[in-house]
Amino acid sequence: MIINPSEVPKETGTNYPEEFKAKVAGRIKQRLGNAAGLNDFGVNLVHLQPGSCSALRHWHVQEDEFVYILEGELMLITNSGEQVLSAGMAAGFPAGEENGHHLVNHSSNIATYLEIGARKSNDEANYPDEDLKAKFTENGVIFTHKDGAVYN
Amino acid sequence: MIINPSEVPKETGTNYPEEFKAKVAGRIKQRLGNAAGLNDFGVNLVHLQPGSCSALRHWHVQEDEFVYILEGELMLITNSGEQVLSAGMAAGFPAGEENGHHLVNHSSNIATYLEIGARKSNDEANYPDEDLKAKFTENGVIFTHKDGAVYN
Repeated sequence: MIINPSEVPKETGTNYPEEFKAKVAGRIKQRLGNAAGLNDFGVNLVHLQPGSCSALRHWHVQEDEFVYILEGELMLITNSGEQVLSAGMAAGFPAGEENGHHLVNHSSNIATYLEIGARKSNDEANYPDEDLKAKFTENGVIFTHKDGAVYN
Repeated sequence: MIINPSEVPKETGTNYPEEFKAKVAGRIKQRLGNAAGLNDFGVNLVHLQPGSCSALRHWHVQEDEFVYILEGELMLITNSGEQVLSAGMAAGFPAGEENGHHLVNHSSNIATYLEIGARKSNDEANYPDEDLKAKFTENGVIFTHKDGAVYN
């Protein structure tokens, strides 16, 4: 099934707790894999405006992730510090590797990338820089503080 | 882990039976996902020379597939006929959908795309245009004729 990205809805917003939403306010996602009816993995075309983050810095317990930069320049931030990713570069994040990562657009131009993520049951995400954990369930994601208390 | 495609080995060749090898002789793959240590899915950067096919026309029983065209123009061939995919277009092929597909470079320039495929056990591939079937096992792929006789 052919997917023309110009016909795929552009989604903004996040299900993060309120206090974290601003960090990804400039993120626009187009769910190409979903549009093609895929289930095994997601493929999103993401447009990241200057100043925005791809996500809070995080790592997944069960699901591999991969990004490929199509346009612009992004800063990859991990435990290793900051590394520039320009168009044509990629990065992969194996499940269970305890190295939080995210992309930040420190440039003055929009940047575009593909993000690919596995889909597995019982996934969790850890956020080393915030008092936040996520559990992914059949009924959606549950965000808690690190002590387990659920965000309201 | 950052992946610079210029540092990832370029692989040619195929494990298809001898009589089918010529169809993919102009296919060069760089296994970016493997280079990043991913297991849940493969992400390959593929360079397809004029006249070459991405694969024999096929569909997978268990594994979703997705392609995103980065450069050039390719013909997608499915049961629906021929459809042009130019840079920025994509296509997805859900597991079990009995619609053989492949990409053919009918242009005079190299074309480049990302291919993403799930990794599952007990996958099979069906090839509607050839006397060929494939079973993917822990010990590698086994190609048979449609009557089950193994290719030598």
